[in-house]
Amino acid sequence: MDLTKIDNPSFIKQFDKQQLNELAEDIRHFLVEKLSVTGGHIGPNLGVVELTLMLHKVFDSPGDKILWDVGHQAYVHKILTGRARDFDTLRQFNGLCGFPKMNESEHDVWEAGHSSTSLSAAMGMAVARDIKGDKNYVIPVIGDGALTGGMALEALNHIGHEKTNILVILNDNEMSIAPNVGALHTILGKLRTAGKYNSAKDELEYILKKIPAVGGRVASAAERVKDSLKYLLVSGVFFEELGFTYLGPVDGHDFSDLERNLQYAKKVDGPVLLHVITKKGKGYRPAEDDKIGTWHGTGPYKIETGDFVKSSSVAPSWSGLIADSISDLARVDKRIVAITPAMPVGSKLESFASEFPDRFFDVGIAEQHATTMAAGLATQGMKPFLAIYSTFLQRAYDQILHDISRQNLNVFIGIDRAGLVGADGETHQGVFDIAFLRHMPNLVIMMPKDENEGQHMVKTAIDYNDGPIALRYPRGNGLGVPLDERTYSIPIGSWEILREGSDAAILTFGTSIPMALEAAELLEEEGINVRVVNARFIKPLDTMMLDEIFSMKMPIMTVEEGVLAGGFGSAVLEYAHDVSYSEAPIQRMGIPDEFIEHGDVNELLAEIGMTANHLTQNVLSILPKKTVERGVV
Amino acid sequence: MDLTKIDNPSFIKQFDKQQLNELAEDIRHFLVEKLSVTGGHIGPNLGVVELTLMLHKVFDSPGDKILWDVGHQAYVHKILTGRARDFDTLRQFNGLCGFPKMNESEHDVWEAGHSSTSLSAAMGMAVARDIKGDKNYVIPVIGDGALTGGMALEALNHIGHEKTNILVILNDNEMSIAPNVGALHTILGKLRTAGKYNSAKDELEYILKKIPAVGGRVASAAERVKDSLKYLLVSGVFFEELGFTYLGPVDGHDFSDLERNLQYAKKVDGPVLLHVITKKGKGYRPAEDDKIGTWHGTGPYKIETGDFVKSSSVAPSWSGLIADSISDLARVDKRIVAITPAMPVGSKLESFASEFPDRFFDVGIAEQHATTMAAGLATQGMKPFLAIYSTFLQRAYDQILHDISRQNLNVFIGIDRAGLVGADGETHQGVFDIAFLRHMPNLVIMMPKDENEGQHMVKTAIDYNDGPIALRYPRGNGLGVPLDERTYSIPIGSWEILREGSDAAILTFGTSIPMALEAAELLEEEGINVRVVNARFIKPLDTMMLDEIFSMKMPIMTVEEGVLAGGFGSAVLEYAHDVSYSEAPIQRMGIPDEFIEHGDVNELLAEIGMTANHLTQNVLSILPKKTVERGVV
Repeated sequence: MDLTKIDNPSFIKQFDKQQLNELAEDIRHFLVEKLSVTGGHIGPNLGVVELTLMLHKVFDSPGDKILWDVGHQAYVHKILTGRARDFDTLRQFNGLCGFPKMNESEHDVWEAGHSSTSLSAAMGMAVARDIKGDKNYVIPVIGDGALTGGMALEALNHIGHEKTNILVILNDNEMSIAPNVGALHTILGKLRTAGKYNSAKDELEYILKKIPAVGGRVASAAERVKDSLKYLLVSGVFFEELGFTYLGPVDGHDFSDLERNLQYAKKVDGPVLLHVITKKGKGYRPAEDDKIGTWHGTGPYKIETGDFVKSSSVAPSWSGLIADSISDLARVDKRIVAITPAMPVGSKLESFASEFPDRFFDVGIAEQHATTMAAGLATQGMKPFLAIYSTFLQRAYDQILHDISRQNLNVFIGIDRAGLVGADGETHQGVFDIAFLRHMPNLVIMMPKDENEGQHMVKTAIDYNDGPIALRYPRGNGLGVPLDERTYSIPIGSWEILREGSDAAILTFGTSIPMALEAAELLEEEGINVRVVNARFIKPLDTMMLDEIFSMKMPIMTVEEGVLAGGFGSAVLEYAHDVSYSEAPIQRMGIPDEFIEHGDVNELLAEIGMTANHLTQNVLSILPKKTVERGVV
Repeated sequence: MDLTKIDNPSFIKQFDKQQLNELAEDIRHFLVEKLSVTGGHIGPNLGVVELTLMLHKVFDSPGDKILWDVGHQAYVHKILTGRARDFDTLRQFNGLCGFPKMNESEHDVWEAGHSSTSLSAAMGMAVARDIKGDKNYVIPVIGDGALTGGMALEALNHIGHEKTNILVILNDNEMSIAPNVGALHTILGKLRTAGKYNSAKDELEYILKKIPAVGGRVASAAERVKDSLKYLLVSGVFFEELGFTYLGPVDGHDFSDLERNLQYAKKVDGPVLLHVITKKGKGYRPAEDDKIGTWHGTGPYKIETGDFVKSSSVAPSWSGLIADSISDLARVDKRIVAITPAMPVGSKLESFASEFPDRFFDVGIAEQHATTMAAGLATQGMKPFLAIYSTFLQRAYDQILHDISRQNLNVFIGIDRAGLVGADGETHQGVFDIAFLRHMPNLVIMMPKDENEGQHMVKTAIDYNDGPIALRYPRGNGLGVPLDERTYSIPIGSWEILREGSDAAILTFGTSIPMALEAAELLEEEGINVRVVNARFIKPLDTMMLDEIFSMKMPIMTVEEGVLAGGFGSAVLEYAHDVSYSEAPIQRMGIPDEFIEHGDVNELLAEIGMTANHLTQNVLSILPKKTVERGVV
């Protein structure tokens, strides 16, 4: 059928199995084709086609609340709720969001981009329903990977205790983004092979009757044996112990199996966990065959071959550069251990993992545990490298503050995907980390101008043994600069002058440096000589260089791809006022006080006025009149 | 024995049961007596006397690593490690810390104040041991309450998966701070009454033999029955499923039972969870009889009666004032729901809970879940009041940002214990919240000058329906001001002039206001007229009032009981520079870039220079020369 004609999911109520199968096939073709152009989360969405169709057939959205944990697997849901026609704009500026979005549809009742939030949100919705006396169903769909996130476990514990009516769909594809780890994963594995509830039940009742009913000590033991049989009758003892009715496992690609179990789940009182087995990438061979997570989220690809459309950059990826630098040092420095919360592929730690299997830990989606485990390692003289995306590091705020910074432990935090990330949008922009880390005592924060400085900063971090140190690096590839053969430590808190000038100073770092240099060129054409400073240490500031700039009374522009409130520019303002400096203007450029949506990074930067032209205008606006006049001549 | 003569725990290795019993009694007397003067965590420490003694007898600290989760139950450990002589200074300025502290003793291998960190830290220490080829034991001691914290569950999942040698002591006293909630609590309750491993084993083997061994379908079912008996043989199926060897339950006050199980645990390969049942407050009747957590941590008390030495304040406690104001409004506004993560007593929500049982949720130690559950409630038109101590709100940073602020949901966040908290020290100071919340888009942050304004701010928050709003309030009691009969909404972002003046302006809020008024008095004696502004909205700023102050070119002092980096003062600097204002100085007072230890709040404030005298000097230092000269005349 023509998917772009769908306005809402009501039509699906009347569909028979044949029609459902055809629709599923149409959707898979649609997704494979559209995403080959736009890129997107192909694997997760191909895995939930039948599940999504059946959820919309059995339940009545939006009265019944379907919550997509993590949110990247909601494409089929978007198609069924009238948004197929927008897929050409998927993840593009002003286009369809890659995650649920309340302002796109009333069927998007919860927005997410970070994992493991859906159970807590569902609990809130279910409680609201019960207080108001409403009767709707609340159905969070959570992956087996997301289930290991601490907040999901907190929620399971609370929901099981309160016995609230919630239907948890456990979408078990044996992967989170990479293959899953953790004891829970082992439990799910056992459940998958244990066979089903119903077939086991008859046999067990027979056995039960054979247990001798005799008196005394043995009888009481027999009672316990009978009790214990519930562990067989319901395979999901782990979830049953937590207070849930466990149903499954169900074949997530079998409409009949899905429908029967969803209908049954509707009738059960109290919290239910329906264990659904799906296959990531189902129906598209290259994605189905993926074992490590390459097809979790992709850029454009060739449909026939599954070859990715190569990025034109020949420079190394930032994640790869940093990971390789760590590996180089780990060969001689036995203290180095690497930890990732479920991002071995994204953080390019596969080589480290295979070279140093005993010193590599993928802890699953568990940023809090990862961070405090790093702290524990550091207490014993190890040097943990903790690689976490900026946006996910938000989950570990307290662990960095209370466990690492407060105890002043030698943990090396690699802040991957720092700055705007583009297509993933507002839930993933790495723009808050400076503001939430800068006020932590003892913490050093740095960001390199290029990949050569990046490798020296890795060396700096490993050599630094006076407390925690964080290295920010952006998404994507480096600039393609040559790499020095030998790496060295950069003095902590030292900035670098990239271009001399005395009419004004631009203080910036990382990805904003090319823009600053371009603005300086434009200004030179106007006769204005601007100093461009690589403020590579965000904390501590290079106060000697600041003092010198202050002594020259240069107007200052700070530029950062991070939030303005409490960011790097504010640190400069704070220092200026602390030393009672007010002789020349200091202005700031950065991310305004709003969430930045998805789109190409350059489009987003233009949207918020972070371009060389804007910077040029801003510098001109803070120059003394005589400088501008002199320049214009 | 004279406990103050103890230098290290080695003497205990030779002690027999009789000597241990006498020592336990001496320690209890010592704790009850010392804490009656200083106050402290009496209940938790009386509960772990025998456990701590036996841990130090069976293991060799500090080679073996004993980690105290939460840390407030380490007093006995401190006595055994040579610190009894310092107990007169417990929790006082420059005195013994109420929590483990590495710089006090080599036996304090991990510091904590927040709960649920010990398992992750232990994993780090155990991994370091294994990499280095060392052989020591790693023994985290975690309460049943702390176990519900998400990061502890993340750690259990990872430890069980990796099969690392760690001995987890589950100190199960059926309370966290208040009585526990959650499904895990129910599981532990079943284990407590299920009897012990050994006594059940013989009976069950008898039963096992009676199960018929026949062919076909039934045989395979019988195999599963036999498998399932492990659930009886080892009662702790929940923990066994996670990959742990479960031992217990053990009587935590029986030296023989403890020693036998600890010795056995030493020999088990892989992760072990030893379930120890203890009684909070054991040996001191008033604390033993406590059912709601009153004796968890206390001020001074009379030993004979257990009566608390009353605070001299007749003003209501801040927590009580806010909670009562919520209750008043909840009677007419059915949208209001209250959520606390394990702090119903501390946050004084008991009356709300008993008046509105269906609209009150104690979710246990689970700040992340509490916060996102509040977000879920708000999506359904409810108005959740989320009461969390400032220091514990750090755990929910990402949930506030990603789930509440980003979706702009009407959650009312009550930030209890904002500012310095005193005796609990550096892990508990509520000084970071402004810096970590101020950069979140959509969020309003306010703090009242007194309890009357506090109740109006509660009304303001409930009336406000444009997004999230946070109300900070300090630990302790209000000022004793009269309360208006009717409450009203305060315009968002409006400040208030408390004292007129035009020579300078002090911008401050909350607990710092009395100091500012005192400084203004002192300055008036010098002939300087200072405007004192109640900057009750920390976000958004009252830019109209700032513009007026700027237009008068008044030197400005900002004062806050929060970190300076990225705090309220920085917000004022940011705005001043955004509007290119530089005509008069702006200086900031607040918490410097370091962790503030324990002690009386006034002593701490004096230590960091936050006194009326310092403020007076600071104001004088930024006045134009002519103003000072005029004043001095």
